[in-house]
Amino acid sequence: MSYAPLKDVYVLDCSTLLPGPYCSMMLAEMGATVVKVERAGAGDTMRAVIPGCFDYLNGNKKFVSINLKQKQGLDTFLRIAKKADVIVEGFRPGIAKRLGIDFDSIKKVNPSIIYCSISGHGQTGPYANIPGHDINYQGLSGLMGVSGDPDKGPEFPDGFQVADLGGSMFALVSILAALNGRNISKDPVFLDIAISESLAMWMMPRYFEYLGHGRPPKSKFMGRGPYGIFETKDNKYITIGVVEDHFWVNLCKVLGLDDLAADPDLSSWHKRNFERKRIVPTITAAIKKENAEHWLDLLTKADVPVAPVCDFENWMDNPQLSDRKFFPKDKYRRFPVNELTIDNPDEIKQPAVGKDNMEIYTDLGLAASEVESLKKEGAI
Amino acid sequence: MSYAPLKDVYVLDCSTLLPGPYCSMMLAEMGATVVKVERAGAGDTMRAVIPGCFDYLNGNKKFVSINLKQKQGLDTFLRIAKKADVIVEGFRPGIAKRLGIDFDSIKKVNPSIIYCSISGHGQTGPYANIPGHDINYQGLSGLMGVSGDPDKGPEFPDGFQVADLGGSMFALVSILAALNGRNISKDPVFLDIAISESLAMWMMPRYFEYLGHGRPPKSKFMGRGPYGIFETKDNKYITIGVVEDHFWVNLCKVLGLDDLAADPDLSSWHKRNFERKRIVPTITAAIKKENAEHWLDLLTKADVPVAPVCDFENWMDNPQLSDRKFFPKDKYRRFPVNELTIDNPDEIKQPAVGKDNMEIYTDLGLAASEVESLKKEGAI
Repeated sequence: MSYAPLKDVYVLDCSTLLPGPYCSMMLAEMGATVVKVERAGAGDTMRAVIPGCFDYLNGNKKFVSINLKQKQGLDTFLRIAKKADVIVEGFRPGIAKRLGIDFDSIKKVNPSIIYCSISGHGQTGPYANIPGHDINYQGLSGLMGVSGDPDKGPEFPDGFQVADLGGSMFALVSILAALNGRNISKDPVFLDIAISESLAMWMMPRYFEYLGHGRPPKSKFMGRGPYGIFETKDNKYITIGVVEDHFWVNLCKVLGLDDLAADPDLSSWHKRNFERKRIVPTITAAIKKENAEHWLDLLTKADVPVAPVCDFENWMDNPQLSDRKFFPKDKYRRFPVNELTIDNPDEIKQPAVGKDNMEIYTDLGLAASEVESLKKEGAI
Repeated sequence: MSYAPLKDVYVLDCSTLLPGPYCSMMLAEMGATVVKVERAGAGDTMRAVIPGCFDYLNGNKKFVSINLKQKQGLDTFLRIAKKADVIVEGFRPGIAKRLGIDFDSIKKVNPSIIYCSISGHGQTGPYANIPGHDINYQGLSGLMGVSGDPDKGPEFPDGFQVADLGGSMFALVSILAALNGRNISKDPVFLDIAISESLAMWMMPRYFEYLGHGRPPKSKFMGRGPYGIFETKDNKYITIGVVEDHFWVNLCKVLGLDDLAADPDLSSWHKRNFERKRIVPTITAAIKKENAEHWLDLLTKADVPVAPVCDFENWMDNPQLSDRKFFPKDKYRRFPVNELTIDNPDEIKQPAVGKDNMEIYTDLGLAASEVESLKKEGAI
């Protein structure tokens, strides 16, 4: 590990699926010791749902199993909790309390714990106990209202788990800030991360733009001129992101559209967006005449914001991502500023539930025979 | 300020527009002193482009102006840089060096600086100097290839600056981790944040799902069954996020579609996605028969993942966001775990470029007369 700023941090993660595990994966990637606590038996449901993703998210952690519904299991949990700097959990609100591992219970055994709860809508409020998935948070956060076709109503367009990852990132930021806060105070910290609010936080810049423009309808607010995805002759796609006026002039020159460059009705970003139904078809037709390579070369040289569209089949071949070793030799980076990688996920090799029980529990002071006995009793 | 874990952190932010300022806004929100360095005269271009957004992003910072092209301006910058824990910059790669404020220059005056560069494609590689906007990064990161209509090619759907905010969040995480790392080493840290790579980091869970499913085509990979946005009788929209089988049974019961619940061809998430062209129209027609309130009530009681779709006009009225005080009385939260707010942005009140020059520069040890003289000479 080349860079491990968190190597003195000990994290206990009881969460499953995506938001909590992505957060603690990042903590581990930066050097933290992350102990993944799984329920004895089946473990994290992600193991079965998306096996390769489970490896990606958890491959850099320690694995212990605990049956929290057994007294000995709970005692064992509290024993590790005593040692932890951070606990992450993603149960439905109320469950942690029922299990006896909520913030109030933990701070009795560990009075300087940083306890992070990640839930769909937060620990309080009328939606607290309504189940949810990414799509529900996307709707609540305002994202759908400004997504998709500007001439249609709200749409669900998103190709990735944008809300879950929002919750994950705000959990991560909050935990890291709280760890920094240890320099100031050792008081316990409770972090109540709502996934829907996290995404709403990312909508704020767009919201303030909306207010600044006098609350326009979607067609006017989200319509875009020379800022889009265009298909080339060889059936590939490129993106053109012309916002500034000088880029517009550069683009028109390359495309041979000098009349558009000179048109005073198209002389600003807002004017070009307003006139999108006139100019987008023209640009579309022009781009379709040559191959992607041709346009990437010419537009780059002319200083126009342009890039190829990658998909999961070809992104490893992209010259920029390759040069930056984003995918170093069949491996996968977990963090932009870190060289650490995991092995090729085409070979899935899920660590067993409880793989590191012996190591972690004996580190706590249990004798090996005690660990064996807990195992026999189903407590771990 | 109720919670300020970063109150001993001093940040110098020379970036403009969205990615850097959003990152440093978060640092300020958690207690850091953030000094926003603007070029003397016009300042951050965001002031003119989206005035209200400028206020939101920067309202909790100190404002100084500096003309980095003048020797005295540069000297003044280096003088504050000496005091800073963190520097954030978002120039095109190469510009900071030309100005004399790159990492190598700064670490000579401040050997424990955390220096964060945010750029479109990173500081190195063949794309380093190609201009870019959010759309270009979305294309490069693989997002477009899995977005929009599953039966069409790559689409640009996103209603917000998902890539810029990705860069912002990874910069924030990297800075916070580096600050924690000060407990281990005081060596200077250079953080090379690429916006396109940050978004690609968020695509990883989807990518591993893609690999795990044997690299399916978009239509098969991204098609969704009872997981979508549906219009109600009163022309509102709700989201239904049924992934798990028991939620599917619950949904069918409420909609009176007992035949679907019993259909063995629809008994798993994957089967339901495969059969989307059969079941989505049925659900769409059912939901259209009653108002949003009706469905939200019934589906919530039946334990189905459901939520209303909010837009920027009505999200303040949402019962959950209201109860959680996401928008406390015409104010706007900047951070999910913090109560801090700013005033109503409908009243834009941009602080002047250089508003805090006197305070910040006299804190450095300059006499008031020296600050006046720098101003007269155009250095600040």
